[in-house]
Amino acid sequence: MLDITPITIIGTGLLGGSIGLGLRQAGHRGRIVGVGRRQVTLDTAVKRGCMDAGVVDVAQAASAGGLIILATPLGLFPDLLRQIATTAPSDTIITDVGSTKSWVCQQAQELLSPALAGRFVGSHPMAGGECHGPDAARADLFVAMPCVLTPQDHTDPKAINVVAELWRMLGARLITTTPAEHDRIVAAVSHVPHATAALLVRLATNTGRLDVASTGLRDTTRVASGDPTVWTDILLTNPLAVCQQLDALAQGIAGLRDAVAAGDAKAIHALLTDAKSTRDKWIQDGKNHAL
Amino acid sequence: MLDITPITIIGTGLLGGSIGLGLRQAGHRGRIVGVGRRQVTLDTAVKRGCMDAGVVDVAQAASAGGLIILATPLGLFPDLLRQIATTAPSDTIITDVGSTKSWVCQQAQELLSPALAGRFVGSHPMAGGECHGPDAARADLFVAMPCVLTPQDHTDPKAINVVAELWRMLGARLITTTPAEHDRIVAAVSHVPHATAALLVRLATNTGRLDVASTGLRDTTRVASGDPTVWTDILLTNPLAVCQQLDALAQGIAGLRDAVAAGDAKAIHALLTDAKSTRDKWIQDGKNHAL
Repeated sequence: MLDITPITIIGTGLLGGSIGLGLRQAGHRGRIVGVGRRQVTLDTAVKRGCMDAGVVDVAQAASAGGLIILATPLGLFPDLLRQIATTAPSDTIITDVGSTKSWVCQQAQELLSPALAGRFVGSHPMAGGECHGPDAARADLFVAMPCVLTPQDHTDPKAINVVAELWRMLGARLITTTPAEHDRIVAAVSHVPHATAALLVRLATNTGRLDVASTGLRDTTRVASGDPTVWTDILLTNPLAVCQQLDALAQGIAGLRDAVAAGDAKAIHALLTDAKSTRDKWIQDGKNHAL
Repeated sequence: MLDITPITIIGTGLLGGSIGLGLRQAGHRGRIVGVGRRQVTLDTAVKRGCMDAGVVDVAQAASAGGLIILATPLGLFPDLLRQIATTAPSDTIITDVGSTKSWVCQQAQELLSPALAGRFVGSHPMAGGECHGPDAARADLFVAMPCVLTPQDHTDPKAINVVAELWRMLGARLITTTPAEHDRIVAAVSHVPHATAALLVRLATNTGRLDVASTGLRDTTRVASGDPTVWTDILLTNPLAVCQQLDALAQGIAGLRDAVAAGDAKAIHALLTDAKSTRDKWIQDGKNHAL
């Protein structure tokens, strides 16, 4: 159980809304406040039971302390951290749901006071989807999903415990690593697959015959329906690892092209067999029960 | 209704089995015969109601004429066409479910008598999935799915009608084009997305941290769990179009890499916005009701 109050969620979309719903479903009784820019979205979130109240003033909400969760697109983080810094009590604990971690942790370090920066624990729940807004929020969005925590040497162990308990209550499977290691991994397992999905949509569109496309393209490109602003921020706050993985993918494509041009059935079969057996094992391992 | 008998399905896996099940569900009463290499698979297909009988001798099955459907991996087609040529009556109609069409139609032209070649109608139902075998067969597999027919100048109009009626009975949405045009389109909307999924699995695997991956990677790589032999044949029988699309994808990756390295938010946002709007419209258009 989370013995901290209030819990303030800044950003009441799919992720923020699902955190509120999930906490209620897990039995959390303390006050949950949502912060957003549009009253209509806040009203929807409150009506859906994601939070007790919705407010628009970040600094005022932050002055109540407790646990603050950043759940907006990454591009808004610097401004939010600056506002939090002006009013949050020094024992406030802060976390986020951003998809990159080195840049986020660096922003927290630079924009918060040393006391608050020591209570900032970066987290990245690997959940979401192509739907947006509090209407899409689900109490079980994080159940069995990986959630990466990236505490640093200067992070207060009590803050780490609170943030870990938050995600445990929401049913997530916790993984702890450094911000840099997180960014290296997710560039390969999330960021580049996302960017590639957009490129595949463009390839298919350029044929002028999307009517021929079917479930294969639907699934390989599902993530391309995600929010362009959210994902532009993600790619641009993890540029080194994303470029490295794009280079690795380009190398793989060049190798496959050579194999196809040369009629090298053995090389192609080996690539496809490795991918199938690795993927089948990953799905079956069921480490991620929601897969 | 299909006024032709028997219907002989060579290959009783997911596609062949689903054709048999679907025809029965659509009210087809004529004899359906399955041809396969393994008696246990044939027995399963018969037990599931995919067909009335299962036999292992292709030439003997072909001697009964009627409608023959090739539903094996492409690599077996030349041998099957040779065997069909030896015994099939000259009014036999032949089609296939292969994912490439120029190569298949050329094989039919070369290996069948002129009379039989004139009754060969290439078809490609855009349905399937990562499951295999007659146990995975479903009567509604083709419902609302695109099915491309590639008749040629020398193709008997009566044969075209029979094959079109086959897919109509199975609920597919018919699209007619040339073999070359088919191959150009599917390289972009199916073959390269499939190959890319395998490359993305390799990228993710190389991090050593598949435990961090989540639903995004699951969906973008779903097709990578397809049969490696089937897909090696597909890529190698459509080499020119596949290489062209791999080149186009490599170019897209290079462009995106430059944009990420340069911090060009505008270019990245434009790519993601175009992809999202195109894909959302495609899904919503509901041309393909199963999407």
